[in-house]
Amino acid sequence: MKRIGMLTSGGDCQALNAAMRGVVKCLINSGEQYEFYGFLNGYKGLIYSNFRMLTGADFSGILTRGGTILGSSRVPFKTIREPDEDGIDKVEAMKQTYYKLQLDCLVVLGGNGSQKTANLLSEEGLNIVSLPKTIDNDLWGTDMTFGFQSAVDVATTSIDYIHTTADSHGRVFIVEVMGHKVGWLTLNAGIAGGADIILIPEIPYDIKKVIDAIEVREKRGCRFTILAVAEGAISKEDAKLSKKEYKEKLQNYTFPSVSYELADQIQKKTGREVRVTVPGHMQRGGAPDPYDRVFASRLGAEAGQLIIKGHFGYMVAYKNREIVKTPLKEIAGKLKTVSPDASIIKEAKMLGISFGD
Amino acid sequence: MKRIGMLTSGGDCQALNAAMRGVVKCLINSGEQYEFYGFLNGYKGLIYSNFRMLTGADFSGILTRGGTILGSSRVPFKTIREPDEDGIDKVEAMKQTYYKLQLDCLVVLGGNGSQKTANLLSEEGLNIVSLPKTIDNDLWGTDMTFGFQSAVDVATTSIDYIHTTADSHGRVFIVEVMGHKVGWLTLNAGIAGGADIILIPEIPYDIKKVIDAIEVREKRGCRFTILAVAEGAISKEDAKLSKKEYKEKLQNYTFPSVSYELADQIQKKTGREVRVTVPGHMQRGGAPDPYDRVFASRLGAEAGQLIIKGHFGYMVAYKNREIVKTPLKEIAGKLKTVSPDASIIKEAKMLGISFGD
Amino acid sequence: MKRIGMLTSGGDCQALNAAMRGVVKCLINSGEQYEFYGFLNGYKGLIYSNFRMLTGADFSGILTRGGTILGSSRVPFKTIREPDEDGIDKVEAMKQTYYKLQLDCLVVLGGNGSQKTANLLSEEGLNIVSLPKTIDNDLWGTDMTFGFQSAVDVATTSIDYIHTTADSHGRVFIVEVMGHKVGWLTLNAGIAGGADIILIPEIPYDIKKVIDAIEVREKRGCRFTILAVAEGAISKEDAKLSKKEYKEKLQNYTFPSVSYELADQIQKKTGREVRVTVPGHMQRGGAPDPYDRVFASRLGAEAGQLIIKGHFGYMVAYKNREIVKTPLKEIAGKLKTVSPDASIIKEAKMLGISFGD
Amino acid sequence: MKRIGMLTSGGDCQALNAAMRGVVKCLINSGEQYEFYGFLNGYKGLIYSNFRMLTGADFSGILTRGGTILGSSRVPFKTIREPDEDGIDKVEAMKQTYYKLQLDCLVVLGGNGSQKTANLLSEEGLNIVSLPKTIDNDLWGTDMTFGFQSAVDVATTSIDYIHTTADSHGRVFIVEVMGHKVGWLTLNAGIAGGADIILIPEIPYDIKKVIDAIEVREKRGCRFTILAVAEGAISKEDAKLSKKEYKEKLQNYTFPSVSYELADQIQKKTGREVRVTVPGHMQRGGAPDPYDRVFASRLGAEAGQLIIKGHFGYMVAYKNREIVKTPLKEIAGKLKTVSPDASIIKEAKMLGISFGD
Repeated sequence: MKRIGMLTSGGDCQALNAAMRGVVKCLINSGEQYEFYGFLNGYKGLIYSNFRMLTGADFSGILTRGGTILGSSRVPFKTIREPDEDGIDKVEAMKQTYYKLQLDCLVVLGGNGSQKTANLLSEEGLNIVSLPKTIDNDLWGTDMTFGFQSAVDVATTSIDYIHTTADSHGRVFIVEVMGHKVGWLTLNAGIAGGADIILIPEIPYDIKKVIDAIEVREKRGCRFTILAVAEGAISKEDAKLSKKEYKEKLQNYTFPSVSYELADQIQKKTGREVRVTVPGHMQRGGAPDPYDRVFASRLGAEAGQLIIKGHFGYMVAYKNREIVKTPLKEIAGKLKTVSPDASIIKEAKMLGISFGD
Repeated sequence: MKRIGMLTSGGDCQALNAAMRGVVKCLINSGEQYEFYGFLNGYKGLIYSNFRMLTGADFSGILTRGGTILGSSRVPFKTIREPDEDGIDKVEAMKQTYYKLQLDCLVVLGGNGSQKTANLLSEEGLNIVSLPKTIDNDLWGTDMTFGFQSAVDVATTSIDYIHTTADSHGRVFIVEVMGHKVGWLTLNAGIAGGADIILIPEIPYDIKKVIDAIEVREKRGCRFTILAVAEGAISKEDAKLSKKEYKEKLQNYTFPSVSYELADQIQKKTGREVRVTVPGHMQRGGAPDPYDRVFASRLGAEAGQLIIKGHFGYMVAYKNREIVKTPLKEIAGKLKTVSPDASIIKEAKMLGISFGD
Repeated sequence: MKRIGMLTSGGDCQALNAAMRGVVKCLINSGEQYEFYGFLNGYKGLIYSNFRMLTGADFSGILTRGGTILGSSRVPFKTIREPDEDGIDKVEAMKQTYYKLQLDCLVVLGGNGSQKTANLLSEEGLNIVSLPKTIDNDLWGTDMTFGFQSAVDVATTSIDYIHTTADSHGRVFIVEVMGHKVGWLTLNAGIAGGADIILIPEIPYDIKKVIDAIEVREKRGCRFTILAVAEGAISKEDAKLSKKEYKEKLQNYTFPSVSYELADQIQKKTGREVRVTVPGHMQRGGAPDPYDRVFASRLGAEAGQLIIKGHFGYMVAYKNREIVKTPLKEIAGKLKTVSPDASIIKEAKMLGISFGD
Repeated sequence: MKRIGMLTSGGDCQALNAAMRGVVKCLINSGEQYEFYGFLNGYKGLIYSNFRMLTGADFSGILTRGGTILGSSRVPFKTIREPDEDGIDKVEAMKQTYYKLQLDCLVVLGGNGSQKTANLLSEEGLNIVSLPKTIDNDLWGTDMTFGFQSAVDVATTSIDYIHTTADSHGRVFIVEVMGHKVGWLTLNAGIAGGADIILIPEIPYDIKKVIDAIEVREKRGCRFTILAVAEGAISKEDAKLSKKEYKEKLQNYTFPSVSYELADQIQKKTGREVRVTVPGHMQRGGAPDPYDRVFASRLGAEAGQLIIKGHFGYMVAYKNREIVKTPLKEIAGKLKTVSPDASIIKEAKMLGISFGD
């Protein structure tokens, strides 16, 4: 009998349940006996020993269900070594829970911050296998994360909806897309949604170039312009600021987000009506799409294999269309960003999309 | 040979194209000859004689297409009698266009304001047939408007997406739903999306009751609460203000909309994390759903029949599951609101939904 | 403490769970105490006393879930008075289960056959409240049944998919739509999907008229023709046959369904390539659409009210946009069919749709 | 001024329009002048010089539109060297059209057969650039074809719909999935849809193993079993037949397809009710999903680059997440099948999916 702990950490996304189902199905079908401990609300459940026992039945029928049956929360990595408000040493508490329950492995489904904590626990001696969860697709060491393609679908559908009304009214529309500090989500949703201008953090924009692109379209007789703007998009000027200067700027910032600032600038300089739409948290909600269901199921199965083989300290990852294992220590603290020279950027430019650069 | 003008006015919605296709198909199939003049961007096209000739081919394949092939704009009714910025008498200009083109009828697809202008033109002697277009379903004289059910679908899907992430993170979520000054859209999307609290303009809310409802859920062990809030929702206190007082309040208002004010209040009083999602213009975009396609097609066909029979001065309307004609003068200036005593409100309360009253 | 039995009978459909949730939420929120007995697999569960106790938690989160958490089966009404294969008197067995469990009311969600059995049990003295479930919308005594609009959505989407490929290849396509012996589903999906020809049981078709309609389209330069054909569609010749003659015909029938016979006839007479698509059981599957979720929730709540008030022997029904109660004895054995003179038929013809008559 | 011919050949699929839009946008944005000749209905248009001139406007707004604006048809490669029924030499006719119009390049969007013809024309001296179109994903020389992921979506949705009704009624359900002679589509839709048994051509099935898998599920208390069966699935016995023997078998075959034969066998041997659903042509219809829109747009842009650079005789292909060019002569006549030893097969088995082997 082996004992497996499992937790989902950070912002939730589609296919978390599909991935966990993959792990559990693989282990149950392996012939050996397993007990499953589901920690509630991410690392908090591990810290405070808040869990429930799970059986195969808990994982039945959840392939298509959004969210996570375990709940999630954010426990910032940068304060993980600090005691909590009651003075409890969080890392020690996690280790105690692990040892007290005599776990053979802890499975962590998480994004960047969560992988850092997973690596820390691995370095502390726990048996860890992790899975790459995030709609941002910004995890180092894997070509793809689950949740990403489903989020692309939601963001693209948002742009699709806006397309018809932008066309009817001849307006400039900004659709603000998630993605934290990277542009993968905006880039893909922007191309898929037929956006005319795409602004991502990796390519700081020049507001004049953005306005030029709008006016060129107008001159060609286009009734409307759609901008897909990453929540982390940044202007060339702001990109030049020091960290301190940028922080100061944000303190006096009166716009809810960069899209509203952009809308304001475009409106003032062109006189055109500009509207902003923010699908926001919708992008991490709803059922996983078929792509993510297959992908997360496969990752889950291979994570199960790592457990069976006793290969710990790895994240299952996707490389060149095969599922491989990447050492946790190679992932932690790195970010996979969009290279401004990437083929997909060049191709988008060939299609006539402006990046405001 | 008869000459038919056509325009789509006000905020666009789904099934505008389906409705126009219905009118044109009906007339073309009637055996008589017709010429179609499509005025661009609503009444503006009529005022400034900006139109294009349309043939049957223009209406082929547009049953499922969102937006409007004619474009739309808002020309406020309350200033319709005032000259435009170039001193042009708008009403006279519209009449001139109509007479110059020797139109036999003008077909207007519009909401509340647009129906007022349609009635004015009818009173001025033009032959008018109108169709009830609005996602708000607030038109007097018809049980249903096209666009409404498709907008319910989009708003409901938004709530569905939020549901999974609200559950994962144990948060309070507010989804702000369109609907102008009436609650039909929020009410239906709220029930369909399984919202726990629904706030609509017709039932001013008491913030204490809203917070009570959240806390009752929490005590019963529910991880999350979802509020469907109409963009026109209003607190009991604000509802008591005079128009002047309310205007003054709005001048000092720092929140983007009522949902953000509510979020702020709930957060402060409960300490819970509250998130706001605003699908916004997405609700009027995208393809019409099957319900609206059938409904708009039927309305269009019956509008065609009114033209064939020479019955002018009417809006085609839906009453007790039949399509009838309602005199324009009976519609203009009235609003169809949700009665706080309506069966659907009572039923929603039976389901345990709180209206904060 | 009151005891409520509940069962779902006949072919399943969308929104069964939503409707049951409505009943249970209404009763739980009424203040009184209730116990819920869910009979498994329709009347079979009642006959063989196969049930499980249900709590509020069983009904949480099922608003959007397709199928039925209780399972369903068909127990034909016409043999209900006959003993089963073990000699058990089915009606007596159902009564015994009811009395043994000391039920205060049995809630039945079912279509035509199931309502007859519900009426029989009511006449036998049991307290019955029923809800109108069927994708066919053929239930007497209600304007609408839940499941119908969601099935229209699936069937329409099927036609939408076929549209693009029919257009690419310039083919004649038949989409066979469910609906048993009535045409509601085909009629609505056909109009919504932009079908060119709609064949329903209530309007027997003349194959010559069908082919004429295809050829007229071809002459006008249309690349393709789409037929929405009800599974119960019947030719004028077959409609004239006596029951005995028709049975004989069916015995020698080599086609899987009427659509394949039609395809064969059209192919032979026009030389055109004809393809058949049968979405089949997909039409009763998947999540309920927002329309059905609201509708079924409202019906459920009002069914709960009937139980609270002790009004038994009724089906909750929808009449002129209000939810009312219809005596079971008025419903049993009748069928709500599409009148060939209905407005919607006339309107469809105005749109240029051929019914092959 | 350069002249570009374009045609879409074979069974249509999603994203054909998106791909063509990509080619045209890339060329238009390159600065040079181009004229576009769209051949109608595939190679037929090239043979019979049936084309229309296309401008940028023709490609506007078609990113999301299913089907192909050029129409398609199948012109079998194996008879391409034979004269047509009027004695016309098809290959010569195609060359004549090409030279007469003074084309600089012919762009072919097609699957296996169409790529062979493209290669033949290339060998005959025409400048050819091709794109990998097929829902089957069976093209040699590319990791992925456009249309595939969208077809996976449709097939998966079909399984999703069937899931709820299979559960309600406790039935065995077979969903027959397209894919010609390869299993990619069935494999992916089967995993995504949570199918319990997946049968693909590359892994011949043993009917006893299939029935075992159903009975094992039943013993574990599962109410239902879903089989995703490729249209090209084959039993171990049939796989052993010689081509001649297999042809003879098919001549006496009374089932519409392999799924019906399987259903018959399962029903006879287990006594369980088995239903078959065939989404059929729906799988190649409807709008492309966001994945395919991005993918086809990128392929189109890179095809445009090949034209600009004068690199002819290639198909744009996808290898290790980059778009590359593959010589047409390396592709022609080969089939990319699912290896029974592929990781994805092993992973599917880890998930408990039976392949009947």
